[in-house]
Amino acid sequence: MKASIILAHPYDKSFNHAIFDRAVQTFRNLGIEPWKHDLYKEDFNPVMTREELGKLPSTDTKVLLYNRELIESDFLVFIHPDWWGQPPAILKGYIDRVIRPPHAYDYDENAEGSPATGKLGGKAGIVFATANTDAERETAYFGDPLEKIWTRCVFGFCGVESSRHVMFSVVSTSSQAQREAWLDQVQDVIETAVAEKRCLATDSRSAVS
Amino acid sequence: MKASIILAHPYDKSFNHAIFDRAVQTFRNLGIEPWKHDLYKEDFNPVMTREELGKLPSTDTKVLLYNRELIESDFLVFIHPDWWGQPPAILKGYIDRVIRPPHAYDYDENAEGSPATGKLGGKAGIVFATANTDAERETAYFGDPLEKIWTRCVFGFCGVESSRHVMFSVVSTSSQAQREAWLDQVQDVIETAVAEKRCLATDSRSAVS
Repeated sequence: MKASIILAHPYDKSFNHAIFDRAVQTFRNLGIEPWKHDLYKEDFNPVMTREELGKLPSTDTKVLLYNRELIESDFLVFIHPDWWGQPPAILKGYIDRVIRPPHAYDYDENAEGSPATGKLGGKAGIVFATANTDAERETAYFGDPLEKIWTRCVFGFCGVESSRHVMFSVVSTSSQAQREAWLDQVQDVIETAVAEKRCLATDSRSAVS
Repeated sequence: MKASIILAHPYDKSFNHAIFDRAVQTFRNLGIEPWKHDLYKEDFNPVMTREELGKLPSTDTKVLLYNRELIESDFLVFIHPDWWGQPPAILKGYIDRVIRPPHAYDYDENAEGSPATGKLGGKAGIVFATANTDAERETAYFGDPLEKIWTRCVFGFCGVESSRHVMFSVVSTSSQAQREAWLDQVQDVIETAVAEKRCLATDSRSAVS
């Protein structure tokens, strides 16, 4: 099994980085060496070009690499702070440029109004987001757009039926003990997702035999 | 009165550009010369730096210019396609880097958990977005995160109480007549917003006298 872990935070001592490290370690402990990208460190350019508006492949080697790994991965993990109910621009640009047709979804250019077909079915999506707004205000006032963005607009659109979205907040005032508990939760979410997928894989082999 | 118009679309013959041109012309006809920025054309870098995480001013001259204009504007107009229920990365980066404390909102670093204070009160926010998803599916399945993102997460958070969010769809299959009607709607929305603000300004002068 394969996994992609994508991180978007400008400060290399951030809690997001601690989540990233724990996620990488958890996959390793489960026997999966993940592809991992710290978008800031890799100086990813998030600006989608005019040429990338259609289905033609990008000419950006980073985009092509990330795209290949995305397609091959069983687990798609994204780690980022909640900025304005959305991911940081550098990760929004990953979505714009990497999750593209015809590999991540596709549509018939000649059939007007026909909905796109998701092509990432069978993968598991996992998002760990951090915020400094308390959960009640996030849901009641802001309407928690981040959860919809990932679960429906990105994963759902591409056919990913199984996804988990975990929001850690309030990070800025959290204690060391709280952060440790959150990192254990990161590990637990990944372990559960991998166990589920392995169980399903075993089941489908049994059904065939 | 002053206005900022911000455009984010990679193709210079897009319908977004037609909206931009009509918006600029409408403000001019009303005697307001707007500040206007085509983020793609100006090669805006949307990646927020580590140094911009706090309240220190950016060192990017474009960010500083956009920020000054934002603060001085009575009308904040954003024009963009709906990509994944969100603005394109280049505009997400404008939000991240330009709408910053202490000018657009502020918070007390010493008072834990105290909510931020919006500082853009009194301005009018206007968003024109384009999409290729029909409105029913947008609301029913995707939950229309874009409307929440602008109205609440951005404008509401910064104290902008008056905002309009107009979504044009389905653009890809629209007729020339439909597009003309949409451009008339752009003009109408701006004329109404300006008329309202002028009326309020007259009222408040009357109340003082």
